[in-house]
Amino acid sequence: MSKQPPTLPKGTRDFSPTQLYRRNHIFDTIKHIFQKYGFLPLETPAFENLSVLAGKYGDEGDQLLFKILNTGDFLAKVEKEDIAQGYKTLLPSIAEKGLRYDLTVPFARYVVMNRNDITFPFRRYQIQPVWRADRPQKGRYREFYQCDADIIGTKSLVCEAEILAMVNEVFQQLGIHDFTIVINHRKLLTGIASSIRAAGKEHELCIAIDKLDKIGRDKVFKELASRGFTSTSLHKLEFIFNIQGTNEEKLSLLRKHLASSEEGSIAFNELDKLFQYIKTLGAEDAPITFDPTLARGLSYYTGAIFEVKVNNIAIGSVGGGGRYDNLTTIFGLPDVSGVGFSFGVDRIYEVMAQLNLFAQSHKSAVQIMLTNIDTESEKLALKVLAQLRSKEIKAEIYPSPVKLKKQLSYANKKNIPFVLIVSPRKELIDKFTLKNMHTGAQNQYTFSELVQILS
Amino acid sequence: MSKQPPTLPKGTRDFSPTQLYRRNHIFDTIKHIFQKYGFLPLETPAFENLSVLAGKYGDEGDQLLFKILNTGDFLAKVEKEDIAQGYKTLLPSIAEKGLRYDLTVPFARYVVMNRNDITFPFRRYQIQPVWRADRPQKGRYREFYQCDADIIGTKSLVCEAEILAMVNEVFQQLGIHDFTIVINHRKLLTGIASSIRAAGKEHELCIAIDKLDKIGRDKVFKELASRGFTSTSLHKLEFIFNIQGTNEEKLSLLRKHLASSEEGSIAFNELDKLFQYIKTLGAEDAPITFDPTLARGLSYYTGAIFEVKVNNIAIGSVGGGGRYDNLTTIFGLPDVSGVGFSFGVDRIYEVMAQLNLFAQSHKSAVQIMLTNIDTESEKLALKVLAQLRSKEIKAEIYPSPVKLKKQLSYANKKNIPFVLIVSPRKELIDKFTLKNMHTGAQNQYTFSELVQILS
Repeated sequence: MSKQPPTLPKGTRDFSPTQLYRRNHIFDTIKHIFQKYGFLPLETPAFENLSVLAGKYGDEGDQLLFKILNTGDFLAKVEKEDIAQGYKTLLPSIAEKGLRYDLTVPFARYVVMNRNDITFPFRRYQIQPVWRADRPQKGRYREFYQCDADIIGTKSLVCEAEILAMVNEVFQQLGIHDFTIVINHRKLLTGIASSIRAAGKEHELCIAIDKLDKIGRDKVFKELASRGFTSTSLHKLEFIFNIQGTNEEKLSLLRKHLASSEEGSIAFNELDKLFQYIKTLGAEDAPITFDPTLARGLSYYTGAIFEVKVNNIAIGSVGGGGRYDNLTTIFGLPDVSGVGFSFGVDRIYEVMAQLNLFAQSHKSAVQIMLTNIDTESEKLALKVLAQLRSKEIKAEIYPSPVKLKKQLSYANKKNIPFVLIVSPRKELIDKFTLKNMHTGAQNQYTFSELVQILS
Repeated sequence: MSKQPPTLPKGTRDFSPTQLYRRNHIFDTIKHIFQKYGFLPLETPAFENLSVLAGKYGDEGDQLLFKILNTGDFLAKVEKEDIAQGYKTLLPSIAEKGLRYDLTVPFARYVVMNRNDITFPFRRYQIQPVWRADRPQKGRYREFYQCDADIIGTKSLVCEAEILAMVNEVFQQLGIHDFTIVINHRKLLTGIASSIRAAGKEHELCIAIDKLDKIGRDKVFKELASRGFTSTSLHKLEFIFNIQGTNEEKLSLLRKHLASSEEGSIAFNELDKLFQYIKTLGAEDAPITFDPTLARGLSYYTGAIFEVKVNNIAIGSVGGGGRYDNLTTIFGLPDVSGVGFSFGVDRIYEVMAQLNLFAQSHKSAVQIMLTNIDTESEKLALKVLAQLRSKEIKAEIYPSPVKLKKQLSYANKKNIPFVLIVSPRKELIDKFTLKNMHTGAQNQYTFSELVQILS
């Protein structure tokens, strides 16, 4: 090698055929179910104007946006003073575009730009990569797929119920049966903040208890104390961490505690109704657990919130979502309520690998390789190859007449299950020698028998 | 609207559900055939290190690369003099990554990085967007999909034949029957350059005659003259523009002309063999035309080259490819020969729209909407909804009990073919009223009849 070998940018990955068969198995399953639930596909460009993205993900998020340098002489219109004042001042003059950070903001942008053409309620799904300049670490990449479904333009709780039934179906269909859908309501957290005399502080409350799984209860309380929650407040708060029982029992206990909270009673009524809808939809067996300590990090949620965890696998949430009322307000279109869910595909992939659920996902790979022994057999093989493909069988021929051993080793490395040893010997003119690469067995078949075996 | 409405970056597009159903119909068709021909999927990251991309597409290409600003304080390590010397000097210090410009260079990078794990010959397909900072114009975007298949690691002409048979099958399958696959050989162009006493100038020859379709023969000759081709050379060159007849006739005429060219005779032998393989593969009916004026713009081709044009539609080539010998040499791995083809999906979409070939591509859309009249009927509708979905029928319910007229108008705008008018009236308890939205007809069916109609 005369040159420095090429490398991949930090935090990015190539996806090999095997990984793609597996990942596409997840995508195809989700897509199929999205469509069954009436969601329509949408795709937006990889980059957006920074005016669309900036300020939507907090200060930290702004720093994690990948910015695209303006093309041509990007310094042409830049004032010298701007350069002298450092990169933050220079940035807006030399970069106007950024890679999308999630699918939610581009979706909101799309809805606002196309509000006159969209038929509301609008059910869309979107499966595309997003990019974040996060510090790469195990399981965290700078390029990864998001997989979202949202229903926008209606406040009906039927939508929450449909999304939860759909989420349940997705995990069941993927073969992940031991999971929990955790559910809570943002207004209930508002009510709790009031009831512990920390009214108006529900945002701080959410941020802190969202970390419960990662840092534990003690540190959550420490963080809340540092954010100005009094020890009386914190003492009262303990209640929600200790609540136990069925969903009905937990809800009714909490209802007593928050009897005076208007926000609280909205939340209870909506959760009651939502559980009712779930039952009517026949999804009462879905493993849904009400948990008043579920908070979700994102600030835009205003109603029911959900998160999915796989039991006994310490990988964090594999999906989450909820109701929001003001998503398009940031682009000047108020009063558009919606509810959405996002599947964490990288983590689902990881879970399925751990649970060994990928065995059956190789259907799309090559089914048979035809050998290439000499000019005569190549000619025959090419004819058979064309016939096999005309029967929709995924087939390839070894492209040159190298040693048979090398050809078989190729098929073996590629996990091709069958090899057709093509020989133009007269006695075999109507029969073909098929080698099963798993068992090593070789048998003779007619063409139609061959097609039957491979179909 | 209180704020400036958001906009899309120049040269980018959102893809609405209808556009996606159509585009995915093209992708799915191509993907299916790729797999049938033994190609395996590959995906690479959206951005690559600029060290991988730069210098691979010529000076013009380098300028059209979208560069990504380094994250954090991108000026921290920049010398003041570098800034003073202008954007070209500054660029390498502030941007290390760029968006991929095509799928070929990332593929070569992948092959070199994974050469010890790949089983050669390696057949991969790749369908991903690429980005170019081209001046946007009708039909030319800054983000667009490429759709490539390559076989790398073998010189066998069987691969060329397979690719041409596959290309033929793709267009037939898409319903585009009136097209031409134009074929030529780079070494034949080398031979022609020698024969007209312009040896070593085949690169200039290719660049110029590649523009034949766009600028016409006179301007091609003008350009060649300006590039130093003598009038004697140009007079001799005219021959290849006038050549006519069947492929065999054209090849044999040209063979006489280039009898003394070694490069030429390699080309003729390969083309002969290729036509033979195409016949053996049963693809002799594919509309393949030999044309010695086909050049292809890219400099890396070394053998057979192909291009597909749709007859009677002035849209330029809808796909092209060829044999290359040195693709991975740029990354230090010599002697890896390959052959590939790239489908121009945006143009194929345009052609199919013009030919009205998209009628049948809406299969994935919602099949039925259930009405929502009051609390009682909503309850019944939700139950039926769950049952329909359990039969794999794509269904949705109108999420709230608004006026029936509004619900029907919603279904109509979304092109949902059937509406189930759900009423809990006793006499209809076992029958459902189905409205055909195309004919307006309403009829009563049992659930199993319903499933039959919709399946």
